[in-house]
Amino acid sequence: MKDSPLEMTLLFDFYGEILTDKQRDFFDLYYNNDYSLAEIAENVGITRQGVRDIISRAEQILRNMESKLGLVARAGRVQDSILEIRDSARFIENFSSGHSGTRVIASHAQRIRELADKIAEEGL
Amino acid sequence: MKDSPLEMTLLFDFYGEILTDKQRDFFDLYYNNDYSLAEIAENVGITRQGVRDIISRAEQILRNMESKLGLVARAGRVQDSILEIRDSARFIENFSSGHSGTRVIASHAQRIRELADKIAEEGL
Repeated sequence: MKDSPLEMTLLFDFYGEILTDKQRDFFDLYYNNDYSLAEIAENVGITRQGVRDIISRAEQILRNMESKLGLVARAGRVQDSILEIRDSARFIENFSSGHSGTRVIASHAQRIRELADKIAEEGL
Repeated sequence: MKDSPLEMTLLFDFYGEILTDKQRDFFDLYYNNDYSLAEIAENVGITRQGVRDIISRAEQILRNMESKLGLVARAGRVQDSILEIRDSARFIENFSSGHSGTRVIASHAQRIRELADKIAEEGL
């Protein structure tokens, strides 16, 4: 049973590069490509338990990084604000488009929305 | 001669918690509290070279983290966009305040600016 896949995928996105190649590969197959422990084991020629141990160790390292650095949580707070910014920008766009006197406002609001989209893509 | 203090302070802000207590303390005294190597050495009773070695090792660890994870660079890109969002929100606020028909726009723009400020505080 996979351990909170969304949380793991986020932790991997932020901290995955500090894992060893093997930890990273197994983790990626398991969480991002939906392979089972048994399938990974069969492909690489080690036991299912061996695969499980490597992935568990990787999970532990990623969790430990987040408990020390908290950078996923920090990015989460930024993204919450970004969603609100996007909503307000959309409101301003809708309200101001169509009125010739407020066209310049609509274009600034559009720019805000584009930038907010860019930040949202940056992560989480 | 301190090594690019702004860069070091940023790296420390993001990754400082992975250092050992001693590395963190010395780094903090040197970069954030402007002590000299000699002053730190005198206070803790080790050689100046000993202090330098510990701080150099800490710098190396922080640089290595950033070269692997790139989270300071990622946050920097977010902050660049945030500055632009803030400028556009200010423009909308100024343009729309004072006109009764666009007061609702001004309040949304103000909210955007507040959220952008919050993100800017979050870091860098």
